[in-house]
Amino acid sequence: MSVAEAIESTEAVSPIERLHALVADDMAATDRLIHQRMASAVRLIPELAQHLIDSGGKRLRPLLTLAGARLAGYQGDGHQKLATAVEFIHTATLLHDDVVDESDMRRGKQSANVVWGNKPSVLVGDFLLSRSFQLMLETGDLNVLGILANASAVIAEGEVLQLHSANNLATTEEHYLQVVSAKTAALFAAAAEAGPALAKREPDFVSALHDYGMNLGIAFQLVDDALDYSGRQAVMGKAVGDDFREAKMTLPVILAYQRADEQARAFWKRVIESGTQSGDDLNHAISLVEQTGAIRETLRRAHGYANAACKAIEHLPKSDIHDALVAVAEFCVERAY
Amino acid sequence: MSVAEAIESTEAVSPIERLHALVADDMAATDRLIHQRMASAVRLIPELAQHLIDSGGKRLRPLLTLAGARLAGYQGDGHQKLATAVEFIHTATLLHDDVVDESDMRRGKQSANVVWGNKPSVLVGDFLLSRSFQLMLETGDLNVLGILANASAVIAEGEVLQLHSANNLATTEEHYLQVVSAKTAALFAAAAEAGPALAKREPDFVSALHDYGMNLGIAFQLVDDALDYSGRQAVMGKAVGDDFREAKMTLPVILAYQRADEQARAFWKRVIESGTQSGDDLNHAISLVEQTGAIRETLRRAHGYANAACKAIEHLPKSDIHDALVAVAEFCVERAY
Repeated sequence: MSVAEAIESTEAVSPIERLHALVADDMAATDRLIHQRMASAVRLIPELAQHLIDSGGKRLRPLLTLAGARLAGYQGDGHQKLATAVEFIHTATLLHDDVVDESDMRRGKQSANVVWGNKPSVLVGDFLLSRSFQLMLETGDLNVLGILANASAVIAEGEVLQLHSANNLATTEEHYLQVVSAKTAALFAAAAEAGPALAKREPDFVSALHDYGMNLGIAFQLVDDALDYSGRQAVMGKAVGDDFREAKMTLPVILAYQRADEQARAFWKRVIESGTQSGDDLNHAISLVEQTGAIRETLRRAHGYANAACKAIEHLPKSDIHDALVAVAEFCVERAY
Repeated sequence: MSVAEAIESTEAVSPIERLHALVADDMAATDRLIHQRMASAVRLIPELAQHLIDSGGKRLRPLLTLAGARLAGYQGDGHQKLATAVEFIHTATLLHDDVVDESDMRRGKQSANVVWGNKPSVLVGDFLLSRSFQLMLETGDLNVLGILANASAVIAEGEVLQLHSANNLATTEEHYLQVVSAKTAALFAAAAEAGPALAKREPDFVSALHDYGMNLGIAFQLVDDALDYSGRQAVMGKAVGDDFREAKMTLPVILAYQRADEQARAFWKRVIESGTQSGDDLNHAISLVEQTGAIRETLRRAHGYANAACKAIEHLPKSDIHDALVAVAEFCVERAY
């Protein structure tokens, strides 16, 4: 299917698929590169990496890199290497997350730590992180290297910061937003600005894409956190209630706790602070989060960030890719309804 | 104490301390940089990193970077950043190793995973790895970045390769050497060649230091693996028998199994392959490894690699640092006696 055909047939496809179609050749080359560069003489490495990489992730982060580069008029193939590096950083994060969170499922499949154990998951994550730096290096662009290396450090900081707030009902919205900005949105921002930076575009262009990615990333995580208390989550191949079971203080819980009566507060104290959970607690948590309007409020905030993402790039020249980026930001919240 | 005084008083000090004294100012600056750059607004990160970094490690790898740079006549301070990056890569590896191996002790203290749990250990390792790339980037030298990023990927490959051979008595000496070259010696090699590479020395100079580091690293690991079956290990603040308990196929076991009679083979099958260990098994393993001459043979091989390390740099101009590097290689094996 040509790009034109792909775009014509977009009635039924999501904006993410539309953006994929607009950079289809780049994405195909990136996919080849992902598979080439996760290769290793040590068999278990590509085996484990492939389990996760080919498990139907949306490739949203590398997509932002490819789209950002094309929007910036970049000519060359360095953006494919950066997109591969971005996907490797993301994959390394997921592998380590699943070990840290003791998760059983990822993208509707058993997670790598369940299939192969924690040891290879930690080590293959390290391998992919190192490989991502090797890929960035091949572009020879120190500025872009700095953007992505910084994001990689900030992600780890965000994950550690999140540990501080687990089991802690006193967690503030501000703390939560700090965590989300670091652990999720920093990579969205870096992925989006890497392309224009590689194309040596003016600072305003680069920072517009940075802001787009940052706001999109926050919106994306807010929606994810809302869906974790929603039946719709099951459709996406992720177990509902993961955050609840790990006693994570996400915005739905922060808001529900703020709005809770005495009885509900006692419930949250038991399940989050003491971590004593049983039988029907998840369902009760879901109904509390729903009744207090915490889900609605979380999605309303997500909508605000999605709007900010669109606003960040509204002064850039219009094009098919520009339209698609705007549509992706809107869709990222709509997917929750 | 001035450098001259430090060198004069070397009668009682080890060659490693002598080399430290020769680059004392560089090492002091590197130590400051290590503490500055492990800082983070997320408190747990420097807390956990410091626990390991200030626990009396010999800083052998950053020492090689500083010495290599000075030997190459490097003028500037980029080598201090590289030495810091090398120490961060090493620290990240140790943090992840201790999680992977479920170790309780490191350098005579409780390991970070015991004090803070696995989660922060994995994440702070990721942070330090990312920070190491940021530090390298500050030198602006793409060639050196490539050397260290490659080493970082190879280390992870070596660690995964090692998992393949755990519990497997059929592990060959060749496989073992592959593991050791990757998981340990690759960083020694990269640390040693990074300085001359930064100084833009000719390829022969750079590869001489690479070969020195690679051979030193193999010798170092062989001695470590021999000491793990020796009472002297306790002196070094590491529990004896760690490798045994983890059923790792190190050279002492490979050789002892080759030389075992039927009864001893049955013992090794039980304790390594089925992993069923109890009470006095470690002592029995130590006596088998000793009786079969496997320790002696392991140390003999280590001696060969130490010699190869010295030979690799023998054609380079003589100097105090050159002498000290030769002495370090010899000492690295002598410490076992």
